[in-house]
Amino acid sequence: MIGGSFARALRQAGFSGEIVGVSSAATIAKATGVVDRGVSLEEAAACDLLFLAQPISGIIETLARLRTNALVTDAGSTKRAICQAAGHLPNFLGGHPMAGKEVSGVENSDADLFRGRPWILTSTPPPEFREWLERIGARVLVLSAEEHDHLVALSSHVPQLISNAIAKVSKPARAVSGPGLESMTRLSRSSFPLWRDIIATNRDEIGAALDDYIAAIQAQRDALGRGDDEALFDHRNP
Amino acid sequence: MIGGSFARALRQAGFSGEIVGVSSAATIAKATGVVDRGVSLEEAAACDLLFLAQPISGIIETLARLRTNALVTDAGSTKRAICQAAGHLPNFLGGHPMAGKEVSGVENSDADLFRGRPWILTSTPPPEFREWLERIGARVLVLSAEEHDHLVALSSHVPQLISNAIAKVSKPARAVSGPGLESMTRLSRSSFPLWRDIIATNRDEIGAALDDYIAAIQAQRDALGRGDDEALFDHRNP
Repeated sequence: MIGGSFARALRQAGFSGEIVGVSSAATIAKATGVVDRGVSLEEAAACDLLFLAQPISGIIETLARLRTNALVTDAGSTKRAICQAAGHLPNFLGGHPMAGKEVSGVENSDADLFRGRPWILTSTPPPEFREWLERIGARVLVLSAEEHDHLVALSSHVPQLISNAIAKVSKPARAVSGPGLESMTRLSRSSFPLWRDIIATNRDEIGAALDDYIAAIQAQRDALGRGDDEALFDHRNP
Repeated sequence: MIGGSFARALRQAGFSGEIVGVSSAATIAKATGVVDRGVSLEEAAACDLLFLAQPISGIIETLARLRTNALVTDAGSTKRAICQAAGHLPNFLGGHPMAGKEVSGVENSDADLFRGRPWILTSTPPPEFREWLERIGARVLVLSAEEHDHLVALSSHVPQLISNAIAKVSKPARAVSGPGLESMTRLSRSSFPLWRDIIATNRDEIGAALDDYIAAIQAQRDALGRGDDEALFDHRNP
């Protein structure tokens, strides 16, 4: 879905070079009109740009097999483990397009997926690559792998775990639920296989961020107990 | 908004009797086509049904002034304090239509607001009233005031407070936020004045539910710490 969306987005933005895909024969068959043809990883190593859009553990396995001087980037949701696995590549640039869908597969790819969304890179990109990202509508943001993993624990990984906890605790009250609870439990429909690698490669930052969230929710409990109700909404203050 | 939506919904469902409104002259002026005319509370006491759609403290003040044998119901978000304030009325039925909008005012009222949404009543309604609620598309649910306040603490009040906490803790990571965080912080745009009465009239149940949520999130922290990652998603098990 992510790889296909990147291919479609480049085409829509006017890229006229060849776009090839490395995947199973079945996926390449479904990718007609998205990529020009399927190739092996060894053949792909001769391209100008390689974009690895797989689960994190798949990206790490691919990196271990890959030998190329080309620009290699990726779409993994955590960055420290991936950047470490790419240490042997002279032109690796960690990437994380913060865009997604609840459906996967090249048949669900979308040329506008990245429009208006942050696309994080772990170091300053070559100007030509940055230009293509901007042409497909992404907002390029350079952050170190460490800073990235810290911030996404706060903005994405822990909110996911809290949504899971809300889904669990609110089960007895489902009959009286409204759109508010729906919004708070939407993420909880994600399944563990999608999260396995994220958690395994960002455990320390997720733990620290979870501690921050627990402290903030405990502070709500304390404010409620002492009747300082206005403090329950002090997030709205600048 | 809620009162006007109920009037519009009844008309759309075929109610041909008179519908009057008790409100400021300015609101009645804006309610042309929604209610037939404005009346005083004393005049309204002679109607067949009174529907109190105000903030909880407003409903409690209105109840204190109201003397009628007519069927009186309300739209307050908590039920114990309101049912207690209605003890002198022979035909009071606590109500909570679980529907809402982010905008208020009769000009934002909507005949379809209650369609498919739960409408909780604190005791069995007279058959004619139940029929009208069903005709406007609401799903009637009878719960005691105690059971109601317990369940909405779980399904609504504490999710609101958690959304507030998420908005606060995630602020430093806003630049890397995606639609997931957006969904988890949507509720946090509510303001304290809308919540003041809810918190004041449901403090005990909100506190107990908040304790349950904190325990569940702490259990996530513990599972993460001991590497039992699959347990982080065990809410998906039946």
